[in-house]
Amino acid sequence: MHHLSPAMKACIDDCLACYATCLGTAMNHCLEAGGEHVAPPHFRLMMACAEICRTSAHFMLINTPHHAHTCRECAEICAECADDCARIGGMEDCVRACRACAESCRKMAA
Amino acid sequence: MHHLSPAMKACIDDCLACYATCLGTAMNHCLEAGGEHVAPPHFRLMMACAEICRTSAHFMLINTPHHAHTCRECAEICAECADDCARIGGMEDCVRACRACAESCRKMAA
Amino acid sequence: MHHLSPAMKACIDDCLACYATCLGTAMNHCLEAGGEHVAPPHFRLMMACAEICRTSAHFMLINTPHHAHTCRECAEICAECADDCARIGGMEDCVRACRACAESCRKMAA
Amino acid sequence: MHHLSPAMKACIDDCLACYATCLGTAMNHCLEAGGEHVAPPHFRLMMACAEICRTSAHFMLINTPHHAHTCRECAEICAECADDCARIGGMEDCVRACRACAESCRKMAA
Repeated sequence: MHHLSPAMKACIDDCLACYATCLGTAMNHCLEAGGEHVAPPHFRLMMACAEICRTSAHFMLINTPHHAHTCRECAEICAECADDCARIGGMEDCVRACRACAESCRKMAA
Repeated sequence: MHHLSPAMKACIDDCLACYATCLGTAMNHCLEAGGEHVAPPHFRLMMACAEICRTSAHFMLINTPHHAHTCRECAEICAECADDCARIGGMEDCVRACRACAESCRKMAA
Repeated sequence: MHHLSPAMKACIDDCLACYATCLGTAMNHCLEAGGEHVAPPHFRLMMACAEICRTSAHFMLINTPHHAHTCRECAEICAECADDCARIGGMEDCVRACRACAESCRKMAA
Repeated sequence: MHHLSPAMKACIDDCLACYATCLGTAMNHCLEAGGEHVAPPHFRLMMACAEICRTSAHFMLINTPHHAHTCRECAEICAECADDCARIGGMEDCVRACRACAESCRKMAA
């Protein structure tokens, strides 16, 4: 897709990677571990993070100027999700994917 | 779903109705009419509107506090989409659904 | 949307209602009840049901002939989800929405 | 995500890559080229392909056994989309992404 800038392409990749990691971790690791992993605030945050990442990627692919707003919201939720996963522990992949996506989205939102 | 407030339930319904109307209108009426109906800025706005409505409904159903931010963005895109559909003409259903959703989302974002 | 048949419009409504009920029930009732409500097979089935309903509605709105296949799969998953919710109990709304959607989708798949 | 098999991880990647390529191509290249690129049957096929790829990836990440059915449908739509893009021409990226995804999904559906 020659039509999208390299920075935007990288951000789409980061969003899709974070979407996959959050959803996969929530529906496998968290659901199987139970306990605080399925506490409503944590689990909802994981699912909200997966959904906003999916949507931000979609907005950039559609090439709508509103992607700046979804990217800003995505950066915020990803940062919060990274912190919550780090607090609970055992989800290093998810922490990494969320931090990378937050940084990438922050740039696109600027 | 007894767990969600009546205002939130109404907003979810408005978002899903607007999602369906925008997507259905874009992929049928606009695509078949051609011309300015498939001009990139208009068509992208219709698709962005459908997607943010879908996502805002999702955030309210998940019951995440971040729904206030997706609802604010949804209200903005819906208002813009209503204006653009009114300008082009022949899409009264879409104008109505977008205005109703914008109003509903503005309340949830407050 | 004058362009879609009344039967298809009704099926879209049933799919979106079932999507909202399954997702809302999973992320509120099930997550808060815990126990067998968050047992991986049940919770995954609820989330798969929400997603296929969302997709089937999308396919009908796009007006692609492939909607017959997503509707067939949707009918199957909804029927299974209704049975599992009935088995666990306390989710009558979800059972009703799933059965209505299954019947509606079965007709569209024929 | 250690919990998913290497073949499933590869298929998720192929689905997300094909989703991004189809959606990005439709909403940029096709919309800007106009003509047969926005003919309803072609454009709907591109959008249906993007959506089923998104859904198949979601089903695998959720880890539901129903992913076999969405993967089978995904393989079919991707193959059809690849042929239609090849027929129109100038969308080699999309042809490649669709063929790779079709092959990957066919294996997961078996």
